[in-house]
Amino acid sequence: MPAPSKRTQVHRHPERGDYDRATIDQILDEALICHVAFNDGDSAPRCLPTIHARVGDTVYLHGSTAARAWKALRAGAEVCIVATIVDGLVMARSAFNHSMNYRSVVVFGTAREVTEEEELHTAAAAITSHVAPGREDEARMPTAAEYRQTLLLAVPIEEASAKVRSGPPKDDEEDMELPIWAGVLPLHTRPGEPQPDPQLSGDLDVPPSVSGYHRPGGQ
Amino acid sequence: MPAPSKRTQVHRHPERGDYDRATIDQILDEALICHVAFNDGDSAPRCLPTIHARVGDTVYLHGSTAARAWKALRAGAEVCIVATIVDGLVMARSAFNHSMNYRSVVVFGTAREVTEEEELHTAAAAITSHVAPGREDEARMPTAAEYRQTLLLAVPIEEASAKVRSGPPKDDEEDMELPIWAGVLPLHTRPGEPQPDPQLSGDLDVPPSVSGYHRPGGQ
Repeated sequence: MPAPSKRTQVHRHPERGDYDRATIDQILDEALICHVAFNDGDSAPRCLPTIHARVGDTVYLHGSTAARAWKALRAGAEVCIVATIVDGLVMARSAFNHSMNYRSVVVFGTAREVTEEEELHTAAAAITSHVAPGREDEARMPTAAEYRQTLLLAVPIEEASAKVRSGPPKDDEEDMELPIWAGVLPLHTRPGEPQPDPQLSGDLDVPPSVSGYHRPGGQ
Repeated sequence: MPAPSKRTQVHRHPERGDYDRATIDQILDEALICHVAFNDGDSAPRCLPTIHARVGDTVYLHGSTAARAWKALRAGAEVCIVATIVDGLVMARSAFNHSMNYRSVVVFGTAREVTEEEELHTAAAAITSHVAPGREDEARMPTAAEYRQTLLLAVPIEEASAKVRSGPPKDDEEDMELPIWAGVLPLHTRPGEPQPDPQLSGDLDVPPSVSGYHRPGGQ
């Protein structure tokens, strides 16, 4: 990993900055969705929530060829991809020192549209597996016609950084004896009861990707 | 609410677009964090995860006066604020028709720095209450010196829209009889066990904002 660039260097709370690829990859893999910001000629940027998946040194973004919002991206606009996981609420004695435990990654780069057949397969399987590990072995994978309607964009992980906060609150010395509870309330993403499609054909068991659902690395 | 603008009109899956203020407000209130995209003179926009709170027709964003990333925002850059809640994974028979049930809001506008004392109080209490309802009555609220280090930005909810997907998967007719389980796996944000600060003074009970934690409207 090269040195942080001007825009990936963490200035505010530099102790939270992490430029290690293992940390960056883990956060990208665990975060279910990301937000992608880019300019499309308007005065404000656009920002879209979307599904992503990492394969080696590449982040794939998933869109639709029919979506006009993605037009600038297909034309090679620069992107800022942010993936954020909130791990808990940091309750300090003072409102000012409240915080969150979180892990976030930012990736800057230029998106390239995936068009080559083998890479389309790789990216589509990675996106499916990213959302629900194992589902790529259960679902019917895309036909050629479906690939033509799927927009897969590739962004190299070259200019990236992570920012991580963990641990208890940090209150000011003079607040430490206040009779106010302080600590961390962890937050987890948990699956509920699977809801079978009302049109489900026959008596199909809930498959492993659903019954054993968890985020990679997630608790 | 005025008619949707060119950039808040939902083109892709127009049936998912919702321009009703009640829907927009509910999503902004329930989403724990948002992502804020803006231009700061670089070729790509910046995108930051941050805490927000809604008070009436205003979204307040919370930052630090020490954070250089917020400099362009303080100078009046246009912003694109996106708040996204993932409600569940939509498992279709085909990989192509996989989706997510989600609710998202986009707000375009120009940020105004909050400087007036009464509005600072209102916004700070709203931010605290947004993260943990009731916490604003438990924690020590900010001093004048702390307000000087807190950056609160106000963005009017004038140009905004929501996008919502719910319900079962929509597979193609020819896939309906495939022996592949299809349905929805709901996802919930759940609090774990509160972790008291190791430096907690005395024997303080876990307060209501922590023991009864839930997102407003959240299940």
